[in-house]
Amino acid sequence: MEERIKTSILIDIYGPLLTDKQRDIMTLYYNDDLSLAEIGEITSTSRQAVFDIIKRCDKVLLEYEEKLHLFENENKKNHVKENLIKILETSENKEDLKKILNYVKENI
Amino acid sequence: MEERIKTSILIDIYGPLLTDKQRDIMTLYYNDDLSLAEIGEITSTSRQAVFDIIKRCDKVLLEYEEKLHLFENENKKNHVKENLIKILETSENKEDLKKILNYVKENI
Repeated sequence: MEERIKTSILIDIYGPLLTDKQRDIMTLYYNDDLSLAEIGEITSTSRQAVFDIIKRCDKVLLEYEEKLHLFENENKKNHVKENLIKILETSENKEDLKKILNYVKENI
Repeated sequence: MEERIKTSILIDIYGPLLTDKQRDIMTLYYNDDLSLAEIGEITSTSRQAVFDIIKRCDKVLLEYEEKLHLFENENKKNHVKENLIKILETSENKEDLKKILNYVKENI
């Protein structure tokens, strides 16, 4: 997975643990793809400070992931879900199987 | 759920975000049910400091839960799993359904 995309997902997962300002800057940089200068202007912060906050938060997000593994677990869970859906879709179908399939798609 | 049990689970979930000393003290208090004096002796810490660390960590764990909701999500997931297993167990059984059931029990 591309590093920027991974960081975007880490922001989604661990963003609530950042300060509002950190989260705003990370979102503007990784999700909205703005330049450091643009972010500096929007957040009334120097270009250098924006850069430092992004570098610091990159590190902090990876440290959270090292400790809690939520990104890794989410990937595993998605893999399990895909497998389960594949099993259900290729099963010999009865009405019950359709119900299970809908349930799994909606809930797991 | 009893408060002590909930705190034990919060320690399991968010323990990696505590320092080693905080995690040790919380585990000795909530999981091993030792007294403040006993924990003080084991960790070479005053009884008062042990008390302060426990109060502080109680608060920190609840703050993590407010931000990340991992305890709440785990409960929801367990509920979904129970429901899914119930649906599968009461379905009209084919060989496929047994396979699905085992898969779900082992993986989700």
